[in-house]
Amino acid sequence: MHSVAEYQQIIASHFSAINTLKEPKNLYEPIQYILALGGKRMRPVLTLMAAEVFDTPYEKALHAATAVEVFHNFSLIHDDIMDDAPLRRGKETVHEKWDLNTGILSGDAMLILAYQYFENYEPQVFQQLAKIFSKTALEVCEGQQYDVDFETRDDVTIPEYLKMIEYKTAVLVAAAMKMGAIVAETSTENADLIYDFGLNLGIAFQLQDDFLDAFGDPATFGKQVGGDIIENKKTYLYLKALEFGTAEEREQLLHLFSIQPTDNTDKIASIKRIFVDTKAASATQEAIEVYTNLAFETLSKMNISDDKKMVLRAFGEKLMKRKV
Amino acid sequence: MHSVAEYQQIIASHFSAINTLKEPKNLYEPIQYILALGGKRMRPVLTLMAAEVFDTPYEKALHAATAVEVFHNFSLIHDDIMDDAPLRRGKETVHEKWDLNTGILSGDAMLILAYQYFENYEPQVFQQLAKIFSKTALEVCEGQQYDVDFETRDDVTIPEYLKMIEYKTAVLVAAAMKMGAIVAETSTENADLIYDFGLNLGIAFQLQDDFLDAFGDPATFGKQVGGDIIENKKTYLYLKALEFGTAEEREQLLHLFSIQPTDNTDKIASIKRIFVDTKAASATQEAIEVYTNLAFETLSKMNISDDKKMVLRAFGEKLMKRKV
Repeated sequence: MHSVAEYQQIIASHFSAINTLKEPKNLYEPIQYILALGGKRMRPVLTLMAAEVFDTPYEKALHAATAVEVFHNFSLIHDDIMDDAPLRRGKETVHEKWDLNTGILSGDAMLILAYQYFENYEPQVFQQLAKIFSKTALEVCEGQQYDVDFETRDDVTIPEYLKMIEYKTAVLVAAAMKMGAIVAETSTENADLIYDFGLNLGIAFQLQDDFLDAFGDPATFGKQVGGDIIENKKTYLYLKALEFGTAEEREQLLHLFSIQPTDNTDKIASIKRIFVDTKAASATQEAIEVYTNLAFETLSKMNISDDKKMVLRAFGEKLMKRKV
Repeated sequence: MHSVAEYQQIIASHFSAINTLKEPKNLYEPIQYILALGGKRMRPVLTLMAAEVFDTPYEKALHAATAVEVFHNFSLIHDDIMDDAPLRRGKETVHEKWDLNTGILSGDAMLILAYQYFENYEPQVFQQLAKIFSKTALEVCEGQQYDVDFETRDDVTIPEYLKMIEYKTAVLVAAAMKMGAIVAETSTENADLIYDFGLNLGIAFQLQDDFLDAFGDPATFGKQVGGDIIENKKTYLYLKALEFGTAEEREQLLHLFSIQPTDNTDKIASIKRIFVDTKAASATQEAIEVYTNLAFETLSKMNISDDKKMVLRAFGEKLMKRKV
């Protein structure tokens, strides 16, 4: 097995080797651009790792890993349009650098390109990959729609929120791992178990994202600390604070989430205080632990050697100890 | 074999039977809406017809036909955003009735849904369908990009224009027919020949669209006659007029294509006169005939009974005699 850093290096060289630059330039340049922006490449790394966990050389999983990363970047382009986001990984978003129509059309092309990478596999494997991919891609769209819907709703429940992050984030992590399993042609049981592993880890990952956004160390956290608070985002922390808070705390929180001050320093501090006082912060940390442990429990049922289980467990533990 | 009207009826009942309405409603309602707007359903009709031409009951091709129609409607939603179109088939476009984000996301979901309809077929057939579908879908995106690019270019050549309409329109007609052939599991030769039949017929169809837009009978033509002229669209008629016209005619045409008068009556009349005088109109009619005959020539090589060839030929002739 390789290390995560090695997989990241493999993915990076693979992406710099594939030439997506064809005619018409205005369609393919934005694709080349966003794929070159980089990022942690966590999803394709998981596909390669899963293939090797099931005793198959990572090379066989490269096309599936590429499909996952191309799809993920398609969703980033379209999400950035919907969120009106000017920046992505510190660089201009596609619709900012080009225009709205380019963002829509280049995104569409990437979704199709993702499917084409599966054509490198035999019909049986191809169909299994395309099936889990379509199911997942549709769920990601549904998750994005729930996220949009939640912006204008004031009665979002915790189970609804969990379903939203499951669809928007966790299913792709899960599917990325399952694709490695499919390419490795392991048993259906193993493939389903690693899907569950990825799903629970993906939920834990997103909850941790919520937590770090408020409580991350500004020195190590990559993004602006308090970004979700500034945008009045209804995160797990917020929903738990509303659930646990006194009438007064709820009122204060609702008020703070209705204002958009020029200087957010006080607002962020007050809200973080409420998150701590209501025990929403500790509840979030507990939930992260619950989902991480759920992921680890699937490992015991998986029919692989103990050292392979340790690799997956170490990956999960590293992910959950992250500060960025 | 069934008649075109019968196939249309079959497609209509099939679409009213499939329930695309799931949660989240804001994602799936627009899909239900655009699929219910109807239209001629030409593409799925061709898929059913192709299956029967190759001696396979149309029922077996219904899922592939559905995929083609769902994809076509995905492209309509996203194209309408790019063209800023308020109406589609006399009803509000999706981004008008809902909003931009809904148009983007519902369109994305439809592209994925289209792939899912292929899951009803066995792995071998599934892979062949998904492959021709991905190739075609990507070409449709490329065609749309060329169309967008041409708006701001003044040096578009006839071959470039023909490639644009081939990609934007003809390849989907061709692929719709080939999918019927794939479902019927006929020979590769037959499948490729019916693809070429559809491709040439599709180009002829689009050239005829250009022609009818200017010279159609207002009493029978469904859309506003002169619509392309009002929008200064660089159609085959326009490009041929520039090629054939005298210096004076070219200058007049370029001028007329640079203005946007409140009342377009004179502009339309002047431009139609130029199209006729330069023989651009007759050249367009000749090109329609050339591509129609190219389509008919593929029939002679096809390994099917003569009466099946007559069905395809009759369909082509009917399509080319249309006034709408």
